[in-house]
Amino acid sequence: MGESFGRYRLADDESFMPFIDACNIACGFHAGDPVVIDRTIQKALKYNLEIGAHPSYPDLQGFGRRRMEVGENELEPILRYQIGAIRAMTQSNGGHLNHVKPHGALYNYAAIHMSTAMAIVKAVKNISPELILYVPPNSCLAEAAQQMGIKVMKEGFIDRTYDDEGKLVSRKLENAVITDPGIAQEQLEQMEKTGTVTTITNKEIPMIVETYCIHGDNPSALRILETLRRV
Amino acid sequence: MGESFGRYRLADDESFMPFIDACNIACGFHAGDPVVIDRTIQKALKYNLEIGAHPSYPDLQGFGRRRMEVGENELEPILRYQIGAIRAMTQSNGGHLNHVKPHGALYNYAAIHMSTAMAIVKAVKNISPELILYVPPNSCLAEAAQQMGIKVMKEGFIDRTYDDEGKLVSRKLENAVITDPGIAQEQLEQMEKTGTVTTITNKEIPMIVETYCIHGDNPSALRILETLRRV
Amino acid sequence: MGESFGRYRLADDESFMPFIDACNIACGFHAGDPVVIDRTIQKALKYNLEIGAHPSYPDLQGFGRRRMEVGENELEPILRYQIGAIRAMTQSNGGHLNHVKPHGALYNYAAIHMSTAMAIVKAVKNISPELILYVPPNSCLAEAAQQMGIKVMKEGFIDRTYDDEGKLVSRKLENAVITDPGIAQEQLEQMEKTGTVTTITNKEIPMIVETYCIHGDNPSALRILETLRRV
Amino acid sequence: MGESFGRYRLADDESFMPFIDACNIACGFHAGDPVVIDRTIQKALKYNLEIGAHPSYPDLQGFGRRRMEVGENELEPILRYQIGAIRAMTQSNGGHLNHVKPHGALYNYAAIHMSTAMAIVKAVKNISPELILYVPPNSCLAEAAQQMGIKVMKEGFIDRTYDDEGKLVSRKLENAVITDPGIAQEQLEQMEKTGTVTTITNKEIPMIVETYCIHGDNPSALRILETLRRV
Repeated sequence: MGESFGRYRLADDESFMPFIDACNIACGFHAGDPVVIDRTIQKALKYNLEIGAHPSYPDLQGFGRRRMEVGENELEPILRYQIGAIRAMTQSNGGHLNHVKPHGALYNYAAIHMSTAMAIVKAVKNISPELILYVPPNSCLAEAAQQMGIKVMKEGFIDRTYDDEGKLVSRKLENAVITDPGIAQEQLEQMEKTGTVTTITNKEIPMIVETYCIHGDNPSALRILETLRRV
Repeated sequence: MGESFGRYRLADDESFMPFIDACNIACGFHAGDPVVIDRTIQKALKYNLEIGAHPSYPDLQGFGRRRMEVGENELEPILRYQIGAIRAMTQSNGGHLNHVKPHGALYNYAAIHMSTAMAIVKAVKNISPELILYVPPNSCLAEAAQQMGIKVMKEGFIDRTYDDEGKLVSRKLENAVITDPGIAQEQLEQMEKTGTVTTITNKEIPMIVETYCIHGDNPSALRILETLRRV
Repeated sequence: MGESFGRYRLADDESFMPFIDACNIACGFHAGDPVVIDRTIQKALKYNLEIGAHPSYPDLQGFGRRRMEVGENELEPILRYQIGAIRAMTQSNGGHLNHVKPHGALYNYAAIHMSTAMAIVKAVKNISPELILYVPPNSCLAEAAQQMGIKVMKEGFIDRTYDDEGKLVSRKLENAVITDPGIAQEQLEQMEKTGTVTTITNKEIPMIVETYCIHGDNPSALRILETLRRV
Repeated sequence: MGESFGRYRLADDESFMPFIDACNIACGFHAGDPVVIDRTIQKALKYNLEIGAHPSYPDLQGFGRRRMEVGENELEPILRYQIGAIRAMTQSNGGHLNHVKPHGALYNYAAIHMSTAMAIVKAVKNISPELILYVPPNSCLAEAAQQMGIKVMKEGFIDRTYDDEGKLVSRKLENAVITDPGIAQEQLEQMEKTGTVTTITNKEIPMIVETYCIHGDNPSALRILETLRRV
């Protein structure tokens, strides 16, 4: 959420808020400007949502969805700056920051690259060891958090497809995003009831998660959320 | 301080640190990136400096020295974001944020424009009412702080000339910056001993201040500081 | 047009193209990235539109709608860079650049500030003296172009209100933008038939123009254009 | 050259100009703003230098030295925009653009990644098939240029070390940059006389080149250039 920027509006964040428990708010590096961030935090507090920081590579034009070769020593303060800004913005509105979820290419790379994962975990810990880190199950990021003693929430995706290794299918491919509410519902129910997910090659793999993610910029986000809450 | 950015180095901050008591650290909007900010905070803590946030209009190319028409409702979160980020970066290094000093065109405009001044004071208060605001004496900014109950430090400039209204002479003019250590020393001694400053038209005006500022990007900064500490 | 940026979509440019003869394409400083610019040029060529560059102050977050204190010597190359980039992008697609129209706060300030107007005209002339400059009638910009021998097209606005001095009403005010197709049609017909426009205080003032502007980000743009073409 | 930005000065470009025949000018994406670019072009014309565009990934904070995952379809217009802007800036100063040399991480990746190389060559060709492309010998970039019929100049580096595959040693390693004028002179003479270069493992490999590059931000650049011209 909070992924609008200046004149640009992306997603009607408030429309989703009655249906969710927690949100991840852009920090200004891939999306979000201070005005947008502030309003989004105020709305999230109104709906009693848990607030998370959603830090990214510094890449507005690429919306944080392009991997960048940023060394661990650079990445840690880049993330700490973003998390710190969102935390201060949240506190100044009378709320508290609950968690951190890396965005886009950073999230995907941290799943498979240990030193990127460590930079994220260190940034979280340096801001506050109480913060929860949202992680993909069985990822480098999950492992790094465990090594450093940071609490995690294992996260599954309602509106993204998985490959056989449990990784999100790249957005460059056509079948990466789920927009059909029925299919999203099936994927959620399967994860919830059986702890598995069916991959794009039709294999069933383990996917035991504690929180479910849906993207604000998914054009079907509201329809999917309405469907899920109904069932 | 902390006004380097990526590949660009501006001033040898550490060389000044033995000579000063407090510093203002760029927040990433006119200068400073998270890596630079982090290192600058670490050095400032090593020298036991009071640390201040130095927020700005969002204008890297103009180094925050061009006035921008930013409305009060936009400006307040823009500043809160910056102050919040620096505060979190300082805290995560084991320090605490002591004060806030607006940068460049924002500082100058806040001296004469009340709603800009109010936006700054509100941002400071929303982050923490304990923060001290550095202000020009007899300015809108000083008045806004008083109205809102924010502590101030009245600030005089060692390396900048004044006009008859007590305002800093514009950097567009040749005589705006003092680089001669002897002249800087005279200006400091005059402010300290008599509570006055001599303007560019040779008038003596009141200038009662509690802290003295010198710019890190002044090419004579180190020589001036060495001279002043000696006397 | 071409005011999308990365992940952000602003207006369905192609939907307007059957209804217009010329367009102004953002140059990347207030909106538009190279991918967006390139696609917009290709579509404009498909619809045989005259292509213009739409340069701006460097302010993506403010969408170029905030005045910035940029000196004439800085502004001229800032504009030349933008116009040059769009011209090269147009030529590389087999088209040619027809005109230049400054964007937002720059356009408004150039109407009343001679040295800003001169910087624009010089930038246009330095790129090519054949380029046409779109100007408000009776403005500093029109006068500067005449002095420097640059051809102009006098421009009237279909979807913006005017004040008694013939200036566009500020977007900060509620009545600045016309979204009702009937009112837009009336304003166009009045300008076309009588060479006048009715201001927000209900005065009739001269407004003799040669081209009519409508904004791509006006939510009623398509409905207004359909109405106008019908009549 | 032209790698200053706003308040930031990087290298005294003019001091090098008496010693060189051609220069590569930053295009604003990794360094350089329109004011800097314009002045650099004017100086280069004064010294009769061949002028080249030095386009980059869009990454000011990383100075274009971090690889970014930018797809070919995005990269081509990103480069065309930059080359076009520099070409227009050069022409408006009465000069002409002679060549293109990709910067930093883009140059290095284009040496080994064919679709990146093709995007560069297409951008060059789309701007003008007369432009010369500076390439590393035996690289994907050289091959792509040959396939598309674009003229090349094979380039050797005076102030960078090579690995056994003929690639530049990464700047992350200590021995990447040559600052000793004597060593730089040896490397130049070896390339010129024997068509080889000695790698960091002390192997001699072929390096037949037509132009020699030295970096403006190398602190020894001027001393190296003076030494080389003397001999």
